[in-house]
Amino acid sequence: MNKKTGIVPGSFDPVTLGHLDIIQRASGIFDEVIVSVLTNSSKKPLFSADERVALIEEATAGMNNVKVDQFDGLLIEYARKKEAQAIIKGLRAVSDFEYELQMASINRKLDDHIETFFMMTSPAYSYLSSSIVKELARFHAETKDLVPDCVEQALQHKFSQNDK
Amino acid sequence: MNKKTGIVPGSFDPVTLGHLDIIQRASGIFDEVIVSVLTNSSKKPLFSADERVALIEEATAGMNNVKVDQFDGLLIEYARKKEAQAIIKGLRAVSDFEYELQMASINRKLDDHIETFFMMTSPAYSYLSSSIVKELARFHAETKDLVPDCVEQALQHKFSQNDK
Amino acid sequence: MNKKTGIVPGSFDPVTLGHLDIIQRASGIFDEVIVSVLTNSSKKPLFSADERVALIEEATAGMNNVKVDQFDGLLIEYARKKEAQAIIKGLRAVSDFEYELQMASINRKLDDHIETFFMMTSPAYSYLSSSIVKELARFHAETKDLVPDCVEQALQHKFSQNDK
Amino acid sequence: MNKKTGIVPGSFDPVTLGHLDIIQRASGIFDEVIVSVLTNSSKKPLFSADERVALIEEATAGMNNVKVDQFDGLLIEYARKKEAQAIIKGLRAVSDFEYELQMASINRKLDDHIETFFMMTSPAYSYLSSSIVKELARFHAETKDLVPDCVEQALQHKFSQNDK
Amino acid sequence: MNKKTGIVPGSFDPVTLGHLDIIQRASGIFDEVIVSVLTNSSKKPLFSADERVALIEEATAGMNNVKVDQFDGLLIEYARKKEAQAIIKGLRAVSDFEYELQMASINRKLDDHIETFFMMTSPAYSYLSSSIVKELARFHAETKDLVPDCVEQALQHKFSQNDK
Amino acid sequence: MNKKTGIVPGSFDPVTLGHLDIIQRASGIFDEVIVSVLTNSSKKPLFSADERVALIEEATAGMNNVKVDQFDGLLIEYARKKEAQAIIKGLRAVSDFEYELQMASINRKLDDHIETFFMMTSPAYSYLSSSIVKELARFHAETKDLVPDCVEQALQHKFSQNDK
Repeated sequence: MNKKTGIVPGSFDPVTLGHLDIIQRASGIFDEVIVSVLTNSSKKPLFSADERVALIEEATAGMNNVKVDQFDGLLIEYARKKEAQAIIKGLRAVSDFEYELQMASINRKLDDHIETFFMMTSPAYSYLSSSIVKELARFHAETKDLVPDCVEQALQHKFSQNDK
Repeated sequence: MNKKTGIVPGSFDPVTLGHLDIIQRASGIFDEVIVSVLTNSSKKPLFSADERVALIEEATAGMNNVKVDQFDGLLIEYARKKEAQAIIKGLRAVSDFEYELQMASINRKLDDHIETFFMMTSPAYSYLSSSIVKELARFHAETKDLVPDCVEQALQHKFSQNDK
Repeated sequence: MNKKTGIVPGSFDPVTLGHLDIIQRASGIFDEVIVSVLTNSSKKPLFSADERVALIEEATAGMNNVKVDQFDGLLIEYARKKEAQAIIKGLRAVSDFEYELQMASINRKLDDHIETFFMMTSPAYSYLSSSIVKELARFHAETKDLVPDCVEQALQHKFSQNDK
Repeated sequence: MNKKTGIVPGSFDPVTLGHLDIIQRASGIFDEVIVSVLTNSSKKPLFSADERVALIEEATAGMNNVKVDQFDGLLIEYARKKEAQAIIKGLRAVSDFEYELQMASINRKLDDHIETFFMMTSPAYSYLSSSIVKELARFHAETKDLVPDCVEQALQHKFSQNDK
Repeated sequence: MNKKTGIVPGSFDPVTLGHLDIIQRASGIFDEVIVSVLTNSSKKPLFSADERVALIEEATAGMNNVKVDQFDGLLIEYARKKEAQAIIKGLRAVSDFEYELQMASINRKLDDHIETFFMMTSPAYSYLSSSIVKELARFHAETKDLVPDCVEQALQHKFSQNDK
Repeated sequence: MNKKTGIVPGSFDPVTLGHLDIIQRASGIFDEVIVSVLTNSSKKPLFSADERVALIEEATAGMNNVKVDQFDGLLIEYARKKEAQAIIKGLRAVSDFEYELQMASINRKLDDHIETFFMMTSPAYSYLSSSIVKELARFHAETKDLVPDCVEQALQHKFSQNDK
């Protein structure tokens, strides 16, 4: 029985309770879970890569086998360097499904020793995304049941600054 | 690091190269994989449960950490009895996705210690199903690249008998 | 301001908390809601039409503007007879969506004075269907959070009888 | 420039204006179009294979390069025997799409000299299917804008007989 | 029987015959319909918010219980301020469906007294969108059957100006 | 038997083996196939229109009835000018399907003498897109089995230049 490492990649701008649900459930199956913040996205993020890592670290403080990291470049090469056996992704909707199927296929073509596993987002979080959370926070609406406490505070701070 | 057991459930009437691709890939991640033939399906199968188990056993003979079993009743209770941590399902298409999302949600409601993981079927097998294989075999068309050898022979035997 | 009547049609074999969520929400918008049990379905139901009506009546006892009825034949002709302005349907998934789009189009062709409105099923019930409830009850699994109390008892009664 | 023959296969139980729209448009591109009625379907049809062929022949009387035929067995072998270059299918919805993608892939695997072409059903007929037409006719609802005249009369005849 | 107010929100850049079909049908069910032009969209619109309001007002001049308004910020807060009971959206396709399901869920979470109702776009307009209309107008193609007269003229004016 | 011309339109930035599979299969059915590079796309391409045409010409050098061309403006007007009978598009996924259905409907409205035919992308290329190819090339990953040789070299050249 070798150590099994799974990577949960994403932009996490910011991390939501939906992401944390996937991370926690993955940490029950894999010996080690690395939450990996993608930093080379073309879209300008609300939170810097370091801020995003710090917020995930705070939110996953109670999960012993979960580490947080950042990467740029190709996910599959990063996974290889980390000696991970699997990439883990949450699925919410049909549109997620098709994009992720495409990415899983290309990743398997590049390295067929690393598998992509999908977990279904809990129904309670099926409507949740980082974009919606930012949209709500921008208009000062309640985000308490959608993100961990540390993210709620960071959002309030971000948008009160932006308003000045 | 506890032993991690994953269950690959299905009707497997009969097992195809698409199923075997999922089983083999799952066996690279989980310490033990149990391929579990569902026997209480309402549809009348072409192969009996015992025949289906025997065909999978022959086709997975080279995979050391793969066992084959049969069950009826609720999958989640079976998984609990087997002390499995995960159910593993292959996804081919959007219609699969919606049904499986529903089943994963209900299973999690019944027991949230058992996770459902999904793996994308390899593009080369994305069009493949047990039904299509049976349809082809019924009309004596080639099934060689679609099923393992033992299934190809079993299909030929089945349909030459039926024709008499 | 004319009285607005909406019809919530279905098989309701049996009614679930997902159906009741739609019925209750519709009753907040329409002056009168008629829950209409379709009796001419080809599939053999678990509960008779009268049993299904009685269970919905018990479950909607606290909703003053909700009536329960049964019908066979074409929904649109039934709606016309009831002088309803609208048909109300819950949507859960993409497969629902396409079928319902087809039915709404044909109904509008038959009578363009009666509109079909769709409501999204609450995420908490998105995985729920009468079929799954029956499947669970058949294997004596818990259905408490899925159906109203009266249905839970009726299911237990039905499946303890069937087992004898 | 060789003669190009396309096959439009289906159950056509009965043919609708949606089918005829596809047949007519295909006949503008292919030198010869063969409308092929599948007779080995497991479902019990309302109209016999001969009745279905006769109705299509009547409805396509004005299209000079359209022939009507029937077949059982595998479509791809039938297409080969007819020396067709292409199979032509109408697509209405996402659920059609996935099933047809699967069939087109398996057919190409069996014979990669015969291509499957898809045409989008006209929006005006996107909700139309043989099943819905039969459902309407069974309850004596209007089918005039949905099927050709000969089918309308055949449906009336069928369902007045059945009622006696 | 309280007055029932429904809001039809959108960018309406510009309003199409598909939008007007939904607005008119909603106005037959709700006592009052407010067509609400969203002004805080990030995308640079072709028509200003005031132009879009004016065009809808002209196109809905014959519908007595329809008002036109504009808003920015969160739709649900706007709906609350307007004392609306419902938000009404047209659905065309599966991709619409998933996004709208997500928005309806989040809106219900923010205020569960306001319901979202969906109406299926008429098949004749199922392919129609403001983007396609603008694309056609930009290349001086015919838009007569796609938009009301006032919009057709406004588009011609806009694109003849832009060409100078 | 008139000459039948089909147009395969696209951005082709750059052409992939998936595109070439569709082009080759179309060239077996149509007397002449024109691969038409769209130049008025709003997105800034990696390769200029002339470069894209040159790469397709090199990759289709062995297909005698295939020509390469470029166009801007509306596809349907271009098709009319070329006296084409059909537009041919490859379909990979449900999201493709809905967009293409919309475009085919609008094109038929503009000119109902030109048909749109769809071909299913081969399963082996179902995950492939120009965007993914560019993403891989940007990070110097292998693209050998995804694009023709000439495109592989052009990508290497492009991204080695960009890195300097």
